[in-house]
Parts: sequence; C-alpha cells; structure tokens
Amino acid sequence: MPELSNSMRALMLTARDRLEVHDMPVPRPGPGQILVRMAASPVNPSDLMTLKGAYGIGAAYPFVPGLEGAGTVVTSGGGIMARAMLGRRVALATGVGGMWAEYSVVDASRAIPLPTGVSLGAGAMSAVNPLTAIALVSIARKGGHGAVVSTGAGGQLGRMIRKRAGEKGVKVINVVRRAEQVAALEAEGARHVLNSSDARFDTDLAQLCRDLRCRMAFDAVAGEMTGRLAVALGPRSQILVYGARDQAQVTLNPGTMIFREVTVSGFWLSKWLPRKPLPLMLWHAREATQALKGGFAVSDVARIVPLGQAADGIAAYAGAMSAGKTLIRLSDEDLGVTPVA
Amino acid sequence: MPELSNSMRALMLTARDRLEVHDMPVPRPGPGQILVRMAASPVNPSDLMTLKGAYGIGAAYPFVPGLEGAGTVVTSGGGIMARAMLGRRVALATGVGGMWAEYSVVDASRAIPLPTGVSLGAGAMSAVNPLTAIALVSIARKGGHGAVVSTGAGGQLGRMIRKRAGEKGVKVINVVRRAEQVAALEAEGARHVLNSSDARFDTDLAQLCRDLRCRMAFDAVAGEMTGRLAVALGPRSQILVYGARDQAQVTLNPGTMIFREVTVSGFWLSKWLPRKPLPLMLWHAREATQALKGGFAVSDVARIVPLGQAADGIAAYAGAMSAGKTLIRLSDEDLGVTPVA
Repeated sequence: MPELSNSMRALMLTARDRLEVHDMPVPRPGPGQILVRMAASPVNPSDLMTLKGAYGIGAAYPFVPGLEGAGTVVTSGGGIMARAMLGRRVALATGVGGMWAEYSVVDASRAIPLPTGVSLGAGAMSAVNPLTAIALVSIARKGGHGAVVSTGAGGQLGRMIRKRAGEKGVKVINVVRRAEQVAALEAEGARHVLNSSDARFDTDLAQLCRDLRCRMAFDAVAGEMTGRLAVALGPRSQILVYGARDQAQVTLNPGTMIFREVTVSGFWLSKWLPRKPLPLMLWHAREATQALKGGFAVSDVARIVPLGQAADGIAAYAGAMSAGKTLIRLSDEDLGVTPVA
Repeated sequence: MPELSNSMRALMLTARDRLEVHDMPVPRPGPGQILVRMAASPVNPSDLMTLKGAYGIGAAYPFVPGLEGAGTVVTSGGGIMARAMLGRRVALATGVGGMWAEYSVVDASRAIPLPTGVSLGAGAMSAVNPLTAIALVSIARKGGHGAVVSTGAGGQLGRMIRKRAGEKGVKVINVVRRAEQVAALEAEGARHVLNSSDARFDTDLAQLCRDLRCRMAFDAVAGEMTGRLAVALGPRSQILVYGARDQAQVTLNPGTMIFREVTVSGFWLSKWLPRKPLPLMLWHAREATQALKGGFAVSDVARIVPLGQAADGIAAYAGAMSAGKTLIRLSDEDLGVTPVA
C-alpha cells in the first residue's frame, strides 16, 4: 500500500454561499472506521440547500459538504468489518456531509461495496436519489397504494421514482411544469404525465386521482403545489413532502385538511433510513447498488468537474437540474461515466 | 301519545349566509329510525362555517343545519332498537345537519339515551365538543404522548380538552391569545398557559415542549399558528388541525417539515367516529353523556334563543365564542340550563 500523504484538498463551506478549496489534514479512522480515497461525489438538491444554510445537517462553519460519494478503502481503523473492506471500492452516504474531499473517514457500516460492473462514478450517486426512490415506493406499497402522484417528475429523482414504482407495480401520475418535459417523459414510456402550468391541471389531476383511486403523493415542489395536491387527491390522502423546489411556504386550506382528513408529512431519508434495523438498511443499500447495473438507479451526468472548479459546476447544476448531475472529481481514477451531450 | 302535527318550523339555509324560518312537513321515520321532538340545539363553530358555505357537510341548498341536539323520541319506524327508545330523552348527532328544526328523524343507532340527572339543554351539547375532546385525548394516549399543546385553549372545547386530558394524566400546554384568558385559565387551575401574542411566545413554547417532551399538538387556530407549532415541537411531531379560527391558509416551512419530519393532519370527528366499531362509538358517546353530570363535558351557555330569533343568537355567538354557547330552543320543554351572567 502506498504511503499516504498527510495533507489533502477539500471543499469547505466557510459561511453561507461561500465554498472554498482548502488544504487540510487527512483524517484518521478509529476502530470500526475506514479511510476512503474518494473518487467522486455528486451535487444534489440537498447540497444546494446546504450551501444556502437551509439544509438539515446544520454543522457549524466551516465544514466539508457532500452527502454521498464513492472511492477506494485505503486504511482501516481496526475491527472485522473495517478490515474486510480494505482495498474495496465502496459507495458512501454519511448523512452528515464530508464527501467533497480527497479523503473521508466513515463507519464501515455506512460503506457499501460496489458490485462488479458498477463504476465509481455511478456508485457515487447510489445513495441519496436511489434510496429515496426505494424508500418512497416502499412506503406506498406498505400503505397498500396502487397509485401515487409524483411532483418534480421531470428531474433525476422523479424519473427514478417512476421507474422504481413501475418495477413494483405502482402506477405514477407524473407532474411536471413544462410542455417539453411532458413530451420527454412520454417518450420514455410514462403513461400519465400532467403539466402543472396547464389551465386544466387541477381538474385533470383530480379526475386522474379518482380514476386510479390515488390517495398518496410524493411532493418535491412544496409551496402552493402541496395544497393543490391536497385538493386533487381523494379523502384521507397522504402527502409526503421530500423536497422544496419552489422554495416557498407550504400552504394548505384548513377546510380541505379537516374535511378531507388530509395528512401532510415531511420525509427525510437521512432520518428515515437509520431508524430501520441494520439488515433492512443493508437491503435498501444493496437494492440501490444492484439497480445501478442498468436499472432504475442510473442517473444522467451532465458534467464532471475537478475539485478546483466545483463552484462553476454547482452553478451550472443549479441552473438546469433536470439536465443531469454535476459530478465532482476527487481523484484521477477512471469514473466510468460519460456526460450526456 | 298525542297526535302529531303534520307541519313543523325549521331553520333553513337557502343560500350562503341566508338562514330563514320555514314551515315544512314533519319527516317520517323508516325502519330502524326514530322521530325526535327536538328540545334544543347549540350553535357550534362548525355551524358558523356551514352558514358561510365552508363546512364539509356540503348539502345542496336549501337544507336544515345543526349538527347536534337533544329531544324526546315520539315515534319509531320499527325495529328493536328504535322501538326501545320510544318516549326516551336522547342526545343526537347526525354528522349531516338537520337539528335546527322542531322534529328530526335519525337512525336509532345515532341516538344516545340521556342519563337521569342530565338535562335536555346539557344533552344537546353532548356530542360535538365532548366527543372531540375524548377523541383527541384518546389519540394522544394511544400514541404514547404524555403532553400535548392545545391552541384555542380559552374556548369551550379548549377547556374540555384540558379537563379531559387532566383526567387521563396527559399534560397540556394551553395556548391562548389574550392576557385575560391566561388569567382565567390559571384561575381554573391550568398549569401551563402561554399567550401567543407575547413576544417571547415562540421561545417559551419551544422550551416548554422540550421540558415536557411534547411532540403532539391539537390546533384549533390554523393559519400561521400551525407553522409556529411545527417549529416549537420536538422532531417527528404530529399536529392535528381540527379547527380554523383564524380562517387563514395553514402555512408551513418545507425545511421544518422535512428536516424535523413533522406530520400535519386534518381531524374531523364526523368522519373519525363513524369509522370506529359500533361498541367503541357507543363507549365514546356514553363517556360524553356521563361527563355531563358535572364532569369535563359541561359547556357554558351564554344565551338561549327561540327558533325565530336564532339569527341574532348566532351573530352574538360569532362575536364572542369563548363566552359560551348559544342554545336554540326548539320546544317549550324545560331545558335545565341557565345562561351564565
């Protein structure tokens, strides 16, 4: 094993909206932990919120953002699990940031070995989006829902939700906000696609919810959309708000809430998943990594940027999220993914 | 049994905000139903919403409002239960209106015989408020909650929730909006009372929620209050919105919803109770009527008005709901209640 440098480069958030490249010491793994030489980490909507100081991880400045990534285990802090991972390529999701650096220390239990045939680049995006899709669809199935509404359906995660639901026999009413997204999703085989900018949207959504007996929605938009969902869904419906694309207060008519007995809940994978028993957590993680081999979990990558140009890549992503992820390159290893045209 | 008149007087809502006294035929009970000569029916906040066209019962105009009341069973449409009720004094709650009339037909299963010692006037108010208090407190206990926040705590229903919770060992953080309500509730023995008009309200509420490990709220106010509750309560908290005193959209910060995994649900007794198995429904109803004998369920009555002056009584109630109920007198029987000074 090559000798490790004592110093690494990392992206540090030193204040709101202030991301800087800094040299810092390579962290050391304790018992049960591993040191991972990071290959890549994506920019997710939740990272954009972190940069604005609006995300739930709430560490004190300065800190290293980045919620997921992939790399190679270079040292172990001891313990059976940690030692067994030495030299393996792994996907990571910490729930607390720290991935936008050349090295990262995590508990061995938070690392998932990548299956053969899954690249480091794809593996870096295996946690946040695929696990959210898996979790939401499993909640729908557990509640006996044969159909769900999904907003923000034109985005990467929205597409994964649709594909995962399709694999599990759950129908999806896909809600987008632009006509070209309707065409794109229909070209991909989506059956029910509605454009929230259409004048007839609320009527059409209510009708489709009746036809499909749909009483659950996954909401990535928040703001007024949540209230429109509450009106369109059947009585005793449930709305899971997991994103806030419109960055606006959720507004709900109290009469609708009461007389239709609507339930609106916030959903956060970072809290939901760790509450599951370890075997179930690992099952979810394996579902996600397996699905990277051509399954529902594959994300489009719009661009790959080196650590020193991350700020530009983040801005480009924020401007056109549906076009694909920005992947931050953290080593010179082959990432095995090609940006879409 | 005296011969029944074929005609009766009733309050009919002929359009939004248009309540008129009309003569109409006395309805006839079918099998399993009873005809009740009504003695009295109260005006509830839900009735005020019905008059504005904003309540969930949604019948076509014209219709007879009034969700609860009490009277004497004068004929039966046949069937064991219905016949057994002949001549008895009963409390009624239909869930669909129809109580503001001299006679009313209901299913015998919706009528609860009044215990000896409970007046017709008190019995007329035994369903909506007491059952809501019983239901909410039972939901809290079932969820293992040792403490709850209750908004609109200065009103009749708020007081019942506090007393019912006290009987069942659930602590209540009472939220009112005026200083004199703080004094009044403390004089009644309430331990935790906060004034939402105070500058320190949000901080104090959050602190008290931490101290009492409170993660559930019963919200009668809606509007911005719901969002303030979401911030003050602990993570994974649950808010049941059962009223909308502020008549404003519920507003919630999506970040708070997601990162604290808050759940907000509409609660409506008219739907909640009928979903319970019949024995449990009857248990709830008996709890409510028993508690009228000096227990938590006793409402203050501000005034008793004859049917012909109901509109004035409704206006007076709408102007000062915390002062006590308006009771509409529907016969010349002794109601056994005295308006508070």
